[in-house]
Amino acid sequence: MSSTEGKVICCRAAVAWEAGKPLVIEEVEVAPPQANEVRVKILYTSLCHTDVYFWEAKGQNPLFPRIYGHEAGGIVESIGEGVTDLQPGDHVLPVFTGECKECAHCKSEESNMCDLLRINTDRGVMLNDGKSRFSIKGKPIYHFVGTSTFSEYTVTHVGSLAKINPKAPLDKVCVLSCGISTGLGATLNVAKPKKGSTVAVFGMGAVGLAAAEGARIAGASRIIGVDLNSSRFELAKKFGVTEFLNPKDHKKPVQEVIAELTNGGVDRSIECTGNVEAMISAFECVHDGWGVAVLVGVPHKDAVFKTHPVNFLNERTLKGTFFGNYKPRTDIPSVVEKYMNKELEIEKFITHQVPFSEINKAFDYMLKGDGLRCIIHMEE
Amino acid sequence: MSSTEGKVICCRAAVAWEAGKPLVIEEVEVAPPQANEVRVKILYTSLCHTDVYFWEAKGQNPLFPRIYGHEAGGIVESIGEGVTDLQPGDHVLPVFTGECKECAHCKSEESNMCDLLRINTDRGVMLNDGKSRFSIKGKPIYHFVGTSTFSEYTVTHVGSLAKINPKAPLDKVCVLSCGISTGLGATLNVAKPKKGSTVAVFGMGAVGLAAAEGARIAGASRIIGVDLNSSRFELAKKFGVTEFLNPKDHKKPVQEVIAELTNGGVDRSIECTGNVEAMISAFECVHDGWGVAVLVGVPHKDAVFKTHPVNFLNERTLKGTFFGNYKPRTDIPSVVEKYMNKELEIEKFITHQVPFSEINKAFDYMLKGDGLRCIIHMEE
Repeated sequence: MSSTEGKVICCRAAVAWEAGKPLVIEEVEVAPPQANEVRVKILYTSLCHTDVYFWEAKGQNPLFPRIYGHEAGGIVESIGEGVTDLQPGDHVLPVFTGECKECAHCKSEESNMCDLLRINTDRGVMLNDGKSRFSIKGKPIYHFVGTSTFSEYTVTHVGSLAKINPKAPLDKVCVLSCGISTGLGATLNVAKPKKGSTVAVFGMGAVGLAAAEGARIAGASRIIGVDLNSSRFELAKKFGVTEFLNPKDHKKPVQEVIAELTNGGVDRSIECTGNVEAMISAFECVHDGWGVAVLVGVPHKDAVFKTHPVNFLNERTLKGTFFGNYKPRTDIPSVVEKYMNKELEIEKFITHQVPFSEINKAFDYMLKGDGLRCIIHMEE
Repeated sequence: MSSTEGKVICCRAAVAWEAGKPLVIEEVEVAPPQANEVRVKILYTSLCHTDVYFWEAKGQNPLFPRIYGHEAGGIVESIGEGVTDLQPGDHVLPVFTGECKECAHCKSEESNMCDLLRINTDRGVMLNDGKSRFSIKGKPIYHFVGTSTFSEYTVTHVGSLAKINPKAPLDKVCVLSCGISTGLGATLNVAKPKKGSTVAVFGMGAVGLAAAEGARIAGASRIIGVDLNSSRFELAKKFGVTEFLNPKDHKKPVQEVIAELTNGGVDRSIECTGNVEAMISAFECVHDGWGVAVLVGVPHKDAVFKTHPVNFLNERTLKGTFFGNYKPRTDIPSVVEKYMNKELEIEKFITHQVPFSEINKAFDYMLKGDGLRCIIHMEE
C-alpha cells in the first residue's frame, strides 16, 4: 500500500485557465480514485494536435479551467473500489477513449468504439459522480478526455488505462497513447496492405508518418507520401516513404497523378489530414478491383464527401477508422511489444524534449509545425 | 467430333432489329469458333433487366441488329484453336463478364474485373478479328456482352464460359449466369454477415431477393427488405425477408427508421436498386463500429454519392461489387454446387416459362414487373 492511498495528493499540474493562453503550472489537489477509477503518477507526457485544438477552443464549447494532456505513460499509485485488473506499481498508458469490456462495441471483434468510454471532449468530469478529481483550493478544475495527463498525478476510469510491459521505457512508449497508434493501426488493422503492395499516405504529420511506418512494417514496395509542404519529404524518408507528391506541383488532381504513376491506382491509401478534398483524392486514387482507402483525419463538421458511385461499383472500398481500430486495453500492450521487439521504430517520432516547467514550449513547437512529438518530463 | 464442327450452323435466333421493337425469330448463320472461342448450343436462357435496358437503347449508343441474351445454360458444340479447358459436350453457363486468367485482376484474389473480358456493352463483335460470328444472308448481326444467348447456337470467348457439373439441370441453373449470382455474391462474398446478424436489403427485385437469399443462407436473424412497392413483401418472405419497409410510409429518412428498429443500425446492408438516394440510405443505415454497406445497383451516370465523412470515421465501411465478386470460371461452378446440395434455392426465382418462339412474352412480363425470372426454352 502506498503512503498516499486514500488521501488527497497535492502536486503540480499545467492548468489552462483560458482558451489559447499559456498553461500555468499550479499546485493542485488530486482526490483519491472512486469506484472503477485509478490514480496514476504520470512520468512522461507528450503533446498531440487534439490538445492544441481544444485548448484553442475555436468552434467548440470552451470548458475552462481545464487540465489537458492525453498521450502519456505512468505508474498506478492507487486503485478505487472494484478495480481488479490493475494494482499499484503497474505501468500504464492512459488512452483518450476507453474500453469497458461490457458493451456491444467492446464485445464485437470489429469495433473499438466503447459505448461507455468513447472519447467525449465535452465532458470535463468523472462518470462515477459527475465531478472533477482536480481542484485548486477547493475550486474544481475540469478533466480532458478522461486522461488529463498534464499533471503529476491524474485520475482515470480503469477502462482508459492500458497495462503494458514494465520493461518498456515510458519516455518512448508514451507516444503510443494516441497519434502513433492511430496511424499505425489504420494501416496494419484496417488498410492491411500485403507485402509488395503500393500505398499512398495523405498528410505527413505524426499520424500520417505512423501510417507510413505501418506500410513499411507490412512490407509495401512503394509508399507515396502526399503533403502540401514539400519540406516534409526528407523527414518522411525515415518512415519508409519512397516517393513524394505535392498536389500544388500538378495541374491535374493528385488522384490522377497517382493513377498514372501506379498503372491505375495504389493498392491502399490512408488519409490523415481531415481535409475533405484529400479524402476524396485518397478514395479515388486506389485501384479498381481491390483498392481500399482508409479515412483517419477528422473532418470539419460541415464537410461533405462526394464521389461518383461507380467508383465504388468498380470494387473499391472506403472505410473509416478511430484510434487505428485498436481496443485500448486489449490491443495497445501488443503495440508496445512491437516496439520492444524492434519491429516498430518509435525514436524517430520524438523530435523534442522539455521539462514540465517548460510545457508551453511544446505548444510553440507544434504551432510552428516544428518536429513531430515533444516529450514532456514530469520529473525535472 | 460433332458433325457440325468447323462448319457454319444455320439455326434460329431472336434478332432485335430496332430499339424497343419486338424481337423477330430469324434463321441465322453461326460461324465456327476461332482461336480461344467456343461454339455453344443454348438449351435455356432467361431474361435479365440488362437485356431490356440495352434493347430499349435509351441513353446508350444503339447497336442494331443485335442478338441479346446473357443468362443461359448450354452444351459445348465445338472449340476453336487454343481452347484446352473445354471440350464438346461440356455443360456451361455463358457469363457477360469473363475471366482471362492472365491479367492483374484475374491474378488478384480480390478482383473479378478482368482487363480483357470485363463487360463491354458497346462492343458487338468478337475480340479475335473484330467481326461478328452471326449473319443473315451474309449481313452481320451484332453480339451482346460476348454471350448473345437468344440463339440456338452462339459463339463466345472461352473466358466467358463457366464449366459446370453436368448433372445440374440447365433449365434451373441458367439463372446463375447473372442476376442471382450478383445478389447472392454481394452478400456472401462482400457483405459477409455473420450468423445471427441483422441485414437490410434495398430493392426487392431478383438481385435484391438473391441478396436476401444470401443473408438467409448466412444465418441472419433479421432481414429487412426495403422497396417502394409494398406488394413485394409477400414474395420477399420466401427469400427470408422478416420485415418490410416502404420509405413512402415514413416521414423520416428510411436510414433513421432502420436505426430505430435495430438499436443503432443493421450489421450489413446491400443496395440493389441503383438509385443514389437508396445508396446513401443503405450506407447510413449500418451500425457504427462494424457496419458494412455494399453497393450492387448500377447508378445513373450523373449520380453523386454524398455523405458526411464522419459516417465513415465512425468505423463504417462502404464497398461496391460487380457480379457478386465471383470470378466467372473459377467461382460460378461452386454456386451451382450450392444449388445441387440444396443450400441455395433457385426454383423460387423462376416464375415463368415460355417457348423460344414466344420470347417477347418474357419482355412483356419484365416490363410489367410481373414475376422474377422467365425461362425461355430453346427446344420447343
